[in-house]
Amino acid sequence: EGAYAKEGYLQPIGIHRAYLALNEFIKTIKQYPVKQTLCVATSALRDAPNGKSFTSWIKQQLNLDIEIIDGTVEARYGALAALNLLPISNGISIDIGGGSSDLALIKNSKIIDTYSINLGTVRIKELFFDTDSSIEEANAYIINEISKLPSHFRHPQAIGIGGTIRSLSKGIMKSEAYPLDKIHAFSYKIKNHLEYFKNISTASKTLLPYLHISKGRFDTIREGALIFQAIINTIEAKKVITSGVGVREGVFLNSFLEKSNFIFPKNINPSIKSMRDRFDTSYSNTSKQKKSAKKLFKLFSKEENLPKLYLKTLLYAIRLTPIGYTFNIYDAHQHAYYTIKHEFNFGVTHKEMILTAMLLRFGGEKLYDKEVYKKYKTVLPKKQELKILSFIYTVIITLYENSFIEDFEFELKDNLLIIKTDKSLYLAEEKLKDLECPSNIELKIQDIQEIPRFNF
Amino acid sequence: EGAYAKEGYLQPIGIHRAYLALNEFIKTIKQYPVKQTLCVATSALRDAPNGKSFTSWIKQQLNLDIEIIDGTVEARYGALAALNLLPISNGISIDIGGGSSDLALIKNSKIIDTYSINLGTVRIKELFFDTDSSIEEANAYIINEISKLPSHFRHPQAIGIGGTIRSLSKGIMKSEAYPLDKIHAFSYKIKNHLEYFKNISTASKTLLPYLHISKGRFDTIREGALIFQAIINTIEAKKVITSGVGVREGVFLNSFLEKSNFIFPKNINPSIKSMRDRFDTSYSNTSKQKKSAKKLFKLFSKEENLPKLYLKTLLYAIRLTPIGYTFNIYDAHQHAYYTIKHEFNFGVTHKEMILTAMLLRFGGEKLYDKEVYKKYKTVLPKKQELKILSFIYTVIITLYENSFIEDFEFELKDNLLIIKTDKSLYLAEEKLKDLECPSNIELKIQDIQEIPRFNF
Repeated sequence: EGAYAKEGYLQPIGIHRAYLALNEFIKTIKQYPVKQTLCVATSALRDAPNGKSFTSWIKQQLNLDIEIIDGTVEARYGALAALNLLPISNGISIDIGGGSSDLALIKNSKIIDTYSINLGTVRIKELFFDTDSSIEEANAYIINEISKLPSHFRHPQAIGIGGTIRSLSKGIMKSEAYPLDKIHAFSYKIKNHLEYFKNISTASKTLLPYLHISKGRFDTIREGALIFQAIINTIEAKKVITSGVGVREGVFLNSFLEKSNFIFPKNINPSIKSMRDRFDTSYSNTSKQKKSAKKLFKLFSKEENLPKLYLKTLLYAIRLTPIGYTFNIYDAHQHAYYTIKHEFNFGVTHKEMILTAMLLRFGGEKLYDKEVYKKYKTVLPKKQELKILSFIYTVIITLYENSFIEDFEFELKDNLLIIKTDKSLYLAEEKLKDLECPSNIELKIQDIQEIPRFNF
Repeated sequence: EGAYAKEGYLQPIGIHRAYLALNEFIKTIKQYPVKQTLCVATSALRDAPNGKSFTSWIKQQLNLDIEIIDGTVEARYGALAALNLLPISNGISIDIGGGSSDLALIKNSKIIDTYSINLGTVRIKELFFDTDSSIEEANAYIINEISKLPSHFRHPQAIGIGGTIRSLSKGIMKSEAYPLDKIHAFSYKIKNHLEYFKNISTASKTLLPYLHISKGRFDTIREGALIFQAIINTIEAKKVITSGVGVREGVFLNSFLEKSNFIFPKNINPSIKSMRDRFDTSYSNTSKQKKSAKKLFKLFSKEENLPKLYLKTLLYAIRLTPIGYTFNIYDAHQHAYYTIKHEFNFGVTHKEMILTAMLLRFGGEKLYDKEVYKKYKTVLPKKQELKILSFIYTVIITLYENSFIEDFEFELKDNLLIIKTDKSLYLAEEKLKDLECPSNIELKIQDIQEIPRFNF
């Protein structure tokens, strides 16, 4: 607190607070079977002449090792979190901090290079905004610092890490009445929001709330917006994807993924794994369902021009269906919808997430709900596509929930879908009777219902 | 199907369906580690001259024992479910079926007597409504049958079981725009709805949808309403509580609770047990929190005239808080709210359930939300009472979530609440700073924050 004003020295009040917080964190850690504690410090301690004294004192008093990391290491941690937890494998990650801005160039899910620019929101604030300098002076300084960035840091995809860029994304979401309340993986095209950024960097503090900036950011968002504009301009970015994770998650993943080349294995989505760990504790096997879903999707993809990219989401929905059963069975689909909307965060786009949730929500008698569709329309497929996907999903789930038949034969011809089996599908048929079909589709079941003779 | 029209004989189409359904149910049962299968049949099989032939045939073909139960046994099962799963220990349970109406007199959570009246919706329909007889004739017949009910079947509290009474309750909920979407434990005063019942029993089928009756009930709801009015009139009931559970749950509980005198032990609420089994798998111990909550509640109860009955709900909320942690920690309270609203069904009133959920929902920075309060106002305490309860809840949860102190001392005097401890409450204090206090209350923390000397 007030450190930058005093040549970067950590001040007694900040030292007090840090000690008390660390002391209580250590007590929390002791309550759990923790194997390893990682504690890193960034620019405030890096720049403080008494930073090392502080960490030695903490080590001596609390036996806690604080590692003061370099700006480029900070960049690497942020990028590690982003490339593992965002649906992206190429781009430049940008983390605008109080004292430095840290960038990483990512190609094919690998960090190619990192760079730390000597530019942060608090630094710019103290140098220019607090001294009544003009915004042009601030900008000239910023542009000069950024010009030192190596010229291979150029990419159309920017990946935004940290509080400043998150605040700008939140502002855009509010301005647009974006239907999802989820900052992680929120994406936008830069050209649509250049005016918004400019308005923020030149705004008076009293104007900031109207620009959907929250109170806690009033102090540094104008500086942050200025730096951000200069960076995305320099790296020639066209799009931004927002990261809800950063250095903290990167520090963890750096240790957790050490033996797998710092990346999650291809077939593991950490959100799906985590949801199944918590809500599908018997780890239901859904491979038969997925196999049948693929068969059915293929038929519809051919006959109804259903884009192939939706298959992935359909399979997510099928795989995640059992998490709803943890709740009461009557509203299992509603509960799975709720859970997915809140917990399916990592490694998926918002469109994939909400489509997965939506397929689960409507799994039942209706293929879609007008009000809900309207709300999420901007991030959902076309209505007819959604109806067909919902239909495929519901048919598959109903067949397997109401029978113990392993495999089905499907036939789709002239808009008539025939489901064939040599066993009885009585219960599934009763359920499917009530199912709404997409406008042009008819459904027929060919099964064998054998009943022994009776005479009474 | 069509059985009553053919002297009660089970017809081939119904026999086919029953066979197919039972056959598939048995396959489902075989997928689980089931110890015991209970299958009971009620009035349709009881009244069918070929009912026993059907059960022998099923036994022979599927090796399944179907027990055809008597009307009084049916009454007992329904009552067993109601007294164990509704927040009630006295009253008369009423289950209006197609062929009989089964009553049980419950006193102090024990079934004192049962009675089966030879009156059902389908029977009345076929005898009167299908034959264009007058409603007066139907009523006279009904009243004559009910007059056989022993005269000790009198109680102000009616407990409604089965589809007919549930449909009437649903209709009342819709007419009143009742804020909860939960039929189980929905209660009402009879005198407020006598006109509604009369309107239903005399309505044409085209009028029924306007009376909020769903399509599946059009056929028998008028008959059901007529029988229901006659019964509640005869037993002199003043209030009705609706049961979402009935014979099916009673059959299970009869076996499950055999060794505990057919009642759940006093300290076990089956919904809380079930929620903890699923969402708080480490069975967090909340006894310290509850002890502190009791202390704090006592102070407020004395100083602010907070009704004592709310203590129970406050303790529910504290006990159920850990279920939110199963979801992502950032919105734990929101998730616990969602879970409780959907899963806290048994052994609580709607008011207790929604207050529990509400305390969890606001656990955080705000004590209440205007919009949400407005929605549930009719089933919530007064605003100032809710704010104080919410305040107590949040203070307790914040103290224990942000420290490892076992016990606190509280002092409430002249609207100043002092929390005392001889340890550091730094993190809790930081959180409580942002907490809204009820209008007249101030909060002060007296802790000891010791920091070792430093010199840098």
